[in-house]
Amino acid sequence: MEKPLADAAQGDSLTFLRDELRTFARERDWEQFHTPKNLAMALSVEVAELVEHFQWLPTGADAELDEQKRTGIRHELADVLAYLIQLADKTNVDLVAALREKMALNRLKYPADRVRGDARKYSEY
Amino acid sequence: MEKPLADAAQGDSLTFLRDELRTFARERDWEQFHTPKNLAMALSVEVAELVEHFQWLPTGADAELDEQKRTGIRHELADVLAYLIQLADKTNVDLVAALREKMALNRLKYPADRVRGDARKYSEY
Amino acid sequence: MEKPLADAAQGDSLTFLRDELRTFARERDWEQFHTPKNLAMALSVEVAELVEHFQWLPTGADAELDEQKRTGIRHELADVLAYLIQLADKTNVDLVAALREKMALNRLKYPADRVRGDARKYSEY
Amino acid sequence: MEKPLADAAQGDSLTFLRDELRTFARERDWEQFHTPKNLAMALSVEVAELVEHFQWLPTGADAELDEQKRTGIRHELADVLAYLIQLADKTNVDLVAALREKMALNRLKYPADRVRGDARKYSEY
Repeated sequence: MEKPLADAAQGDSLTFLRDELRTFARERDWEQFHTPKNLAMALSVEVAELVEHFQWLPTGADAELDEQKRTGIRHELADVLAYLIQLADKTNVDLVAALREKMALNRLKYPADRVRGDARKYSEY
Repeated sequence: MEKPLADAAQGDSLTFLRDELRTFARERDWEQFHTPKNLAMALSVEVAELVEHFQWLPTGADAELDEQKRTGIRHELADVLAYLIQLADKTNVDLVAALREKMALNRLKYPADRVRGDARKYSEY
Repeated sequence: MEKPLADAAQGDSLTFLRDELRTFARERDWEQFHTPKNLAMALSVEVAELVEHFQWLPTGADAELDEQKRTGIRHELADVLAYLIQLADKTNVDLVAALREKMALNRLKYPADRVRGDARKYSEY
Repeated sequence: MEKPLADAAQGDSLTFLRDELRTFARERDWEQFHTPKNLAMALSVEVAELVEHFQWLPTGADAELDEQKRTGIRHELADVLAYLIQLADKTNVDLVAALREKMALNRLKYPADRVRGDARKYSEY
C-alpha cells in the first residue's frame, strides 16, 4: 500500500541555492543569456558531461571509480542542479512541488503490485 | 565583492524527496535497474524531453507557451530532478553541498568585474 | 505533389567510412567497449559537444562563428557521424535505406499542403 | 602500422539524402525553423530517443531486442542521420571529408601500439 504523502517539505535548500544563482548571474550581467531555451541546452550539455564519466564503465558502481572520477561526477552533478534550478526559476516551476505531484501520478500509473521487478513494464516508465 | 557564503541550508526538501524516491523504487523492485550508468542515461533522456519543448521556439519565454506546454515542462523538470536525486544518491553525493562548493569555485574562476556581460568569456563557463 | 523516390543511392561513402571505423577499432582492440548501449551513450556525448558550440548564440548562423568555432563544429559533426555509423553497424541498420524509408513515412505523415509553415504542426514533427 | 588513406569516396548517398531533405523542408516552408542552433537541439532530442531504447538493457545486443524495439532503433537512427545531414548542410560541412580528416587526426592521437585494449586510455578518446 502506498504511504500517504507527508506535508510538503519547505524546499528551503533549493530556494537558498536559487537565490545564490540569481545573484551570481546578476553580478555578471549574464541574465541576458538565460532564456529558458538556452538554459535547457546548457542543462543538456552538463548532463552529457556527466554521462561521459559512465559511458565505458560496466555500471558506474563505486568500485569502478577512482578519486578523480568521483570529483568529476560530483562537480557535474552540481552543474546539472545549477541549470535545473535556473530553468525552473525562469519557467516559474516549484521543483519540489512538481516532483511531489509527478510522484503521485507515478504511484497511480505504476502500482507496485502490478509492475514489481518487471523490466518490460519498467521500460515504459 | 562576493558575499560570504551563508550557513549551508539543511537540504531537507531534497532529503525528503530522496527518501520518497528510494521507497518508490524499492516497492517496485526497480533498484536492480538503477546503476549509476543507467540513471545517467535516463537523466539524459528526460532532459531531452525537456529540450524538445523549446527546440522550435525563439526563446521559450512564458508568452511563447500555452497551458499544455507549461504542464509538460513542469512534469519534465520533475522527472529530471527525480533522476538527478537518484543518481546523486547512488554516487553518494550531497547535491546541496556539491553545488555550494562548485559555486565557490565559479566565483574565483569568473570574477564579476572581469566577465561582466561578456558572451565570449561566458561561453567558457 | 511528392516526387517519386529515385533509385536508392549506393551508400558507398558510408560503407567506406564504416570499414575504416571497423579497422580503427579492431587495431586498438576497442571493440570490447563498443556495445550498442555504450555507443548510444557516446553518440549522445558527442552531440552535446556540438550543442555546446551553439548554446549561447542567437541562431548559430555563419556570421556568429569565428574560425575556431567553425573547426570545432566540423570536428564534432565528424565525431557524431563516426558513432552513428558504428552504432548502425552494431545494430545491423543500413542508414541510407533507413532514412529513405523514414522519409517516405514522413511524406505521408506531413503532407506539404497541410503543414506548410505551421510551427504548431511542425512541433509534432 | 596505419594503412594509408584510400582515395576519398564520393559521398554520393549523403549528397542524395541532403537534396531529398532540402526538398522536404522547402516544400513545407520549414526552412525558417532550421537554424543551426535549432537543428543541433533537434539532433540531441533524436539521439535521446535512441538512447531511450538502450537505457535499461545490459548491452543492447541483438538478443536483448524484440522486433518492435529493432524497428524503433532503425527509425531513430534515421532521424539522427536526417538532422545530422541538415546541420552539416547549414554549417557548410562536408561530413565525409570531415570524418576522414578527424580519423587521420585520431590515428596520430591514438597509436594502436600504445592504446591497445586500454580502457583508461580509451576513456580519453
